[in-house]
Amino acid sequence: MVKVEPKTLPGFMELMPNDQVKFNEMKETIKRSYERFGFLPLDTPVIEYSDVLLAKAGGETEKQIYRFTKGDTDLALRFDLTVPLAKYVAQNQNELGFPFKRYQIGKVYRGEKAQKGRYREFYQCDIDIIGDGELSIINDAQMPSVIYTTFKELGFDNFTICINNRKILNGLFASLNLRDSAADVLRIIDKIDKIGEEAVKSEIKELGVTDNAIEAIMNFILIDGNTDEKISKLESLGINDETFKIGLNEITDVVKYIRAFGVPDEFFAIDLKIARGLDYYTGTVYETFLNDYKKLGSVCSGGRYDNLAEYYTDKKLPGVGISIGFTRLFYQLNEAGAIKTENETISDVLIVPMDENIEEALNVATKLREAGINTDVYLEDAKMKKKMKYADKWNIPNVIIIGEEERNTKLYALKNMITGEQASLSVEDIIKKLRK
Amino acid sequence: MVKVEPKTLPGFMELMPNDQVKFNEMKETIKRSYERFGFLPLDTPVIEYSDVLLAKAGGETEKQIYRFTKGDTDLALRFDLTVPLAKYVAQNQNELGFPFKRYQIGKVYRGEKAQKGRYREFYQCDIDIIGDGELSIINDAQMPSVIYTTFKELGFDNFTICINNRKILNGLFASLNLRDSAADVLRIIDKIDKIGEEAVKSEIKELGVTDNAIEAIMNFILIDGNTDEKISKLESLGINDETFKIGLNEITDVVKYIRAFGVPDEFFAIDLKIARGLDYYTGTVYETFLNDYKKLGSVCSGGRYDNLAEYYTDKKLPGVGISIGFTRLFYQLNEAGAIKTENETISDVLIVPMDENIEEALNVATKLREAGINTDVYLEDAKMKKKMKYADKWNIPNVIIIGEEERNTKLYALKNMITGEQASLSVEDIIKKLRK
Repeated sequence: MVKVEPKTLPGFMELMPNDQVKFNEMKETIKRSYERFGFLPLDTPVIEYSDVLLAKAGGETEKQIYRFTKGDTDLALRFDLTVPLAKYVAQNQNELGFPFKRYQIGKVYRGEKAQKGRYREFYQCDIDIIGDGELSIINDAQMPSVIYTTFKELGFDNFTICINNRKILNGLFASLNLRDSAADVLRIIDKIDKIGEEAVKSEIKELGVTDNAIEAIMNFILIDGNTDEKISKLESLGINDETFKIGLNEITDVVKYIRAFGVPDEFFAIDLKIARGLDYYTGTVYETFLNDYKKLGSVCSGGRYDNLAEYYTDKKLPGVGISIGFTRLFYQLNEAGAIKTENETISDVLIVPMDENIEEALNVATKLREAGINTDVYLEDAKMKKKMKYADKWNIPNVIIIGEEERNTKLYALKNMITGEQASLSVEDIIKKLRK
Repeated sequence: MVKVEPKTLPGFMELMPNDQVKFNEMKETIKRSYERFGFLPLDTPVIEYSDVLLAKAGGETEKQIYRFTKGDTDLALRFDLTVPLAKYVAQNQNELGFPFKRYQIGKVYRGEKAQKGRYREFYQCDIDIIGDGELSIINDAQMPSVIYTTFKELGFDNFTICINNRKILNGLFASLNLRDSAADVLRIIDKIDKIGEEAVKSEIKELGVTDNAIEAIMNFILIDGNTDEKISKLESLGINDETFKIGLNEITDVVKYIRAFGVPDEFFAIDLKIARGLDYYTGTVYETFLNDYKKLGSVCSGGRYDNLAEYYTDKKLPGVGISIGFTRLFYQLNEAGAIKTENETISDVLIVPMDENIEEALNVATKLREAGINTDVYLEDAKMKKKMKYADKWNIPNVIIIGEEERNTKLYALKNMITGEQASLSVEDIIKKLRK
């Protein structure tokens, strides 16, 4: 028979089981954290009508889409979880009731240039809160609370949730008559850590911005101090623009409520350089950085938007949401040796029969499983060394060996594979010892 | 703005949140049960190279495939989880070690004719055990043990795991010189419950089968009694065919070990009419029926195969596996009102602030969340009635109302939405009461 080479597409993550265990545990932690805040689950299809999915898209996004026909139907794979949410909410607006809080954890598809650490199929872990016509600013403070809880649960202790408000940026640029160059200026500002203050100034100057305006921008960008100091420095800039003032009020409220949610001050900060996508977010924006792994970039981002589903419905649906690009995050953390999960195994114990008389092993296994202990049994005919290698291979932390003596005494040798410790125990005692 | 109609593709399940909660809980139960037996997780890509995915396919399957190109690459969406497993094992055979036990729960795609209860995107929940060259028959008995545990955990108490062995069928037909008509005969036999014994006989006769052979087939098919009686009646048929004898030995062993795994006799049965796919399974085969919902058909099926990955590798990889077509099962059970899960909600409690002074509510929420209680807070400005309706809508079983008095006394009114019971409690007492 002619063989086909068994190969996986580039840009598609396919893990070995031990890594998959870690991946799933982290994904489960994120899910549990989202549920802790009362977000409801959705699981929308991977495939949608192209005209539905691409109602808004254009440019780069559209080029990356996996789009095809089946029969006469023009189909596309989802490239994020926000557009399917917009479709879902528009479609079910009368049944849902608002505010509507949902999470979705699922794979999305983007035909990007394949490169190390970039994936064409990847998990996003999203939460959004959607309001009917309006949505309290307190929701903007809830997002950092969810991020804080989630990354704490993932085992991280040193991270910063950076917040900003698009209205502050928009107001600043409006007050300087720089609305049209705002995007370009923001792009240059974004490089300040790399290229330095002077280079930023001269690049902005090349755009034709006046020296006065450059000075105002730099004064704004270089505002420092703790969160409260930053807010009072923003106030003292005396920028007389209505949007700026609204933004400043919003960020002041958001900070107040973030604290009320119990997020310690050392875990969040105002970062006036953060803008996120220029055409979507309209208020609070978020980026999150693991301070020990800064080069990963933002590991959780999002923001407030005025209108979720304007391409599908006249109903005004403001919302706020965040997203974790989980596949990439896992890859990067794994590369950096920064995965904090403890489990690398499914089975708590492997039962190894010494001979062909296997009923006792099956019986003990059933009892352990009934007690909630994940139990594997080595059923093949093999040398003892090979059997123990199996436990080692899959990081199974305990082994129970069952031979004639064990069958007679009903006491079983339980061996801890990590410490080497061994004890002869009854099934009941083994259960007590292994139960988490 | 011209609106696009927000619609979902026919044949693609998209649930409302309350149903999604039930769906996820059942899916989680299946996962937990698979892990209980030490199966390791895999999460292969949804998209594969077409030549890899279609190495084996043909006929009906191939027509249903979602196949398309991206750039110059010929791609297809997976239509089951077995072919990706075969690819994976062939690809990683040196790294994995055997026996290799994996589960995978994921969406697969088949462009079937859309009809009620039939899905084009659906979850399969699979387990397989793959051996290197050989695989002990005890694994064939493990599958019913997993099915038993899983459906028990799903809340079912009245189901039958039906087993048969393809070698018994093949041996019977070989002994009657009916190898070539076996497929046709089996198809007719499959209808016996619908059309009756006489109609089956006459349809088989139309195939040109002799009266003697028909009698032998009917004697075989109509074997009744309990499991042990069936085995001894099979023995007493005196069929002198090597394959038949091997099959009979195998099913005898499988029955012995199913009992050793602790599966009670009333939950499994030998059903000699079961054949499953004719070109794939080579030994033990399984079908599972919920006896109170027989018209659902088999809810969990599978079997033993000689060679998992012959299209990709020369290495002989025998295996045994089962699959639950979960999306369809959920739809059918939901329609029949037969979902046994208890949870219909994510949040254990909704905190409802009486006024704009919301910090206390956020503070209590954080404490409850830290204690592992899923907690939602109603943050919008709304009438009390609307706030309570929110709890009702999402089946949130408890509400905590916080106003000025509660802020002063630190005692909070906890209302059980089901019983109507209300009590004034401290946060600590609320935690004790709500913690599962």
